[in-house]
Amino acid sequence: MARVVVDVMPKQEILDPQGQAVAGALPRLGFEGVASIRQGKHFELEVDDSVDDATLERIAETLLANSVIEDWSIRREQS
Amino acid sequence: MARVVVDVMPKQEILDPQGQAVAGALPRLGFEGVASIRQGKHFELEVDDSVDDATLERIAETLLANSVIEDWSIRREQS
Repeated sequence: MARVVVDVMPKQEILDPQGQAVAGALPRLGFEGVASIRQGKHFELEVDDSVDDATLERIAETLLANSVIEDWSIRREQS
Repeated sequence: MARVVVDVMPKQEILDPQGQAVAGALPRLGFEGVASIRQGKHFELEVDDSVDDATLERIAETLLANSVIEDWSIRREQS
C-alpha cells in the first residue's frame, strides 16, 4: 500500500471566492501580513502498489479535479 | 514573502462523505486498487516574513479549520 496525496487548486486566472472570503476575514480577526490566500482541495488516497502513476494521473484528471478550471499535483508520500 | 501551505483534513474518527462519494465512484469508472480516500482542504498563503509560526497556528485554528472535527498541518514552502 502506498499513500498518495493529490492537491487541487483553482488555476491562477480563475477567481477563487473561497480564498477571497478567507483573505477578507483575516484583517477583521486581527491578523495582518497575509498578502494572499487561495483555497483548494486536498485528497489523501491509500492505493495498492499495483496502481501506477499514469493511473493516478487519470484518477486526478477525471474525478478529483476539473481540468478546465483547476490544476493539480500528485505526490507519493513515504509510508 | 513566504509561501505557506495549510492542509485541513477531517479527523480519522469523523465520517468523510465527500471522500466516500469519490471512493464509491472510482470502481464505477473502472479504477481498481484504491483502498481509501479522504478529502480535505488545501490553503496556499503568501505571508510577510513578519508572520511567525504561532500566528500561522492561530490563523489555521480560528479560520481555516474547525478544531472540533478537523486536523491541520502547516508547512512553509521553499520560495
